[in-house]
Amino acid sequence: MTLPLRIGLLGLGPVGSAVARAILDKREVLERRSGAPLELRRVLVQRRGLPRTVDESLLCFDAEEILGDPEIDLVVELLPGEEPAYEYIVRALSAGKHVVTGNKEVMAKHGPDILQLAAEKGVDISFEASVGGGIPVIGPFKLDLLANRIHRVRAIINGTTNYILTQMATHGSAFSDALAEAQALGYAEADPSKDVDGIDAMYKLTILGSLAFHLRVRPEDIYTEGITGLAPADFRYARELGYAIKLLAIGEEEDGAVALRVHPALLPESHMLAKVDGVFNAVAVEGDLVGPILFHGRGAGGGPTSSAVVADIIDLAQRSAAGPTRVHPPLFEDTYAIRRMDDVRTGYYLRMLVQDRPGVFAQITRALGDAEISLASVIQKENVLLGEPAAEYAEVVLMTHRTREATMQSALRIIAALPVVYRIGSLIRVESE
Amino acid sequence: MTLPLRIGLLGLGPVGSAVARAILDKREVLERRSGAPLELRRVLVQRRGLPRTVDESLLCFDAEEILGDPEIDLVVELLPGEEPAYEYIVRALSAGKHVVTGNKEVMAKHGPDILQLAAEKGVDISFEASVGGGIPVIGPFKLDLLANRIHRVRAIINGTTNYILTQMATHGSAFSDALAEAQALGYAEADPSKDVDGIDAMYKLTILGSLAFHLRVRPEDIYTEGITGLAPADFRYARELGYAIKLLAIGEEEDGAVALRVHPALLPESHMLAKVDGVFNAVAVEGDLVGPILFHGRGAGGGPTSSAVVADIIDLAQRSAAGPTRVHPPLFEDTYAIRRMDDVRTGYYLRMLVQDRPGVFAQITRALGDAEISLASVIQKENVLLGEPAAEYAEVVLMTHRTREATMQSALRIIAALPVVYRIGSLIRVESE
Repeated sequence: MTLPLRIGLLGLGPVGSAVARAILDKREVLERRSGAPLELRRVLVQRRGLPRTVDESLLCFDAEEILGDPEIDLVVELLPGEEPAYEYIVRALSAGKHVVTGNKEVMAKHGPDILQLAAEKGVDISFEASVGGGIPVIGPFKLDLLANRIHRVRAIINGTTNYILTQMATHGSAFSDALAEAQALGYAEADPSKDVDGIDAMYKLTILGSLAFHLRVRPEDIYTEGITGLAPADFRYARELGYAIKLLAIGEEEDGAVALRVHPALLPESHMLAKVDGVFNAVAVEGDLVGPILFHGRGAGGGPTSSAVVADIIDLAQRSAAGPTRVHPPLFEDTYAIRRMDDVRTGYYLRMLVQDRPGVFAQITRALGDAEISLASVIQKENVLLGEPAAEYAEVVLMTHRTREATMQSALRIIAALPVVYRIGSLIRVESE
Repeated sequence: MTLPLRIGLLGLGPVGSAVARAILDKREVLERRSGAPLELRRVLVQRRGLPRTVDESLLCFDAEEILGDPEIDLVVELLPGEEPAYEYIVRALSAGKHVVTGNKEVMAKHGPDILQLAAEKGVDISFEASVGGGIPVIGPFKLDLLANRIHRVRAIINGTTNYILTQMATHGSAFSDALAEAQALGYAEADPSKDVDGIDAMYKLTILGSLAFHLRVRPEDIYTEGITGLAPADFRYARELGYAIKLLAIGEEEDGAVALRVHPALLPESHMLAKVDGVFNAVAVEGDLVGPILFHGRGAGGGPTSSAVVADIIDLAQRSAAGPTRVHPPLFEDTYAIRRMDDVRTGYYLRMLVQDRPGVFAQITRALGDAEISLASVIQKENVLLGEPAAEYAEVVLMTHRTREATMQSALRIIAALPVVYRIGSLIRVESE
């Protein structure tokens, strides 16, 4: 008879509740698939007296009742934010317990240390739920794609912002209106900054980039820009040019260096990522053998995320039951350097309001030409709006070929300072197929 | 020092060559990720004197030199068709060797027996490459999605037919022209019947269905219909109605029974599967926890398929190096019955040529009404073509709501026998979101 896997659960929010419900309601089938009995021993909650999905007798209010219980084999950590989650994970691993976590912030900030601690203690830490909800993305990088040299990862990994961008593209909504709608539907939090400023996507890219490139990626290695500066006009022009606008998390290897960045980007409409709408997530990967592949699904919510958490539990149960586990090759190969954002080469979309008189366009293109930036396309619109000085302005939209970020930024400063340029509307990077 | 994994390779076609090249060219990184040295010991080929990707000294021409060599731990089987591949796999497993195969026909026809033999012998058989090339699909079903009850799998798993259908949809080509083009490009074989008749997709659905529903699926359990009957007109009408036409492999659970079928289907243009074009494959899965997810990528070719084969090799190396392997829970739970095609309920698209005179339409709708089949939409076109008897004909296209297959087929026989109906053009099933 196989020994049961005794589980302590930290947190009973939407994901924790869905995990507890799955373990309790699907016990028979999950145990058959695990090859071992699964026993939910104790659940840490913050407050007494709330209606709960698990029996009152399982609840505890002090983490020590789980972390200090020698009979608990596995700690499932599903708390929000960095602390006390990080502390609890370290204590659990130090006590020789396996850990399953869905905590992207902890894994992004402390992943390498946590993995090393787990290795030293001979226990496992799994974190499939930390990126992409129930979409298998960590698993594929840890095994299925291991034969590949990964060239590029591009992902839509924040459902809140993808919902907002879809509303702006479909209905021409302003950012603030689309955000308010997302908040009303429960897709965005009251303080939406972690989502709309790209922080959530940046944490997830830290994890994805580490796995894809076998590299120690830290949050500060990632250039991060949110979606608050996008205007309805950008979506109209993008469509005219055959592009969608998405908040992308991008990791890209070239000449031995990896660039990692989160920012809004124009993406050709024919690309599968451009077709990912609403709260859906998708991760597109390009490998030397496999070519381009894409994973698509719901990236958040109790159900989808619990699917990943319970899969990690089953995986652990299967391996614990068999005795010694598999060989874990070193996760980090440290083959690559990190490329700074200044040195990234990409195309640019530039929208600005300029004085509507002869010679203006020549001044702008000269500034670009001087920096050796070549134009891919130009849209010029008569503009009915009058600026603050009583004059007529025209909206000009340019798309450039690939150039260095630093080169583009310095050309932009020169253009912005031209007396004929009234205002820079937006600068958005352009991704190719 | 870990013992090397000694590999015998059966077959050096496009996939076998790509696998051999990966093992030889990427040795250092693959060994680091495997946790064990990988040694390509011997390669079975059919003929002498051809230019090869591996050193002449590795080649052999008699399978016994691999299957009978006690020093070979792992046999990688990449031969075309059922025999002698099946025989070799059985001999390898019986001799206590692990097997990695990409052979969908063998796995579809003999999967349960092979899995049982491997279990009896205490060795592993892996077959990620048998479906979807390098797209991880077997792995997700064997682990990542294991917490779910799977409701439905719908897949585009034959690149040849998806290329042909994309050409027909995009350029209005006739089937024969699109097929000839696919053949010229190397996407279709000289004898294309296994692809265009749906046989290849059916083998793959046998494997996917077994994994998704934990059920012993046999090829004869699957209703199979190819794409040879589709006409350019069907693609025009489908688009008018907001649908794409795809060859789908579908497995669907309802009320404790699973229906499995391969046939062309109308699919709403908004569905992610409708956006899968050219030789690409995609597998869409719906689970009770994870909701809808989709995997997309190249489903064939040496590179992508070798990505899956080498991942299976790394997996095996990691586990062999650790000693005892994980617990393999029983693959088959046999919870479900198989639902016969007659009892499947779906929508239908029906195109026919009828006499262009009053009362004709009433006769057709009466036949449908008598069978309690309700109409979802109707298109009627004046037709310039004259039939063989000198008369004017009109093309009528109907879409029905969901009804039983047997009911629809018997109504169709009644309609086809009506004197006013000149010819049934096509009957295509309709999938919902």
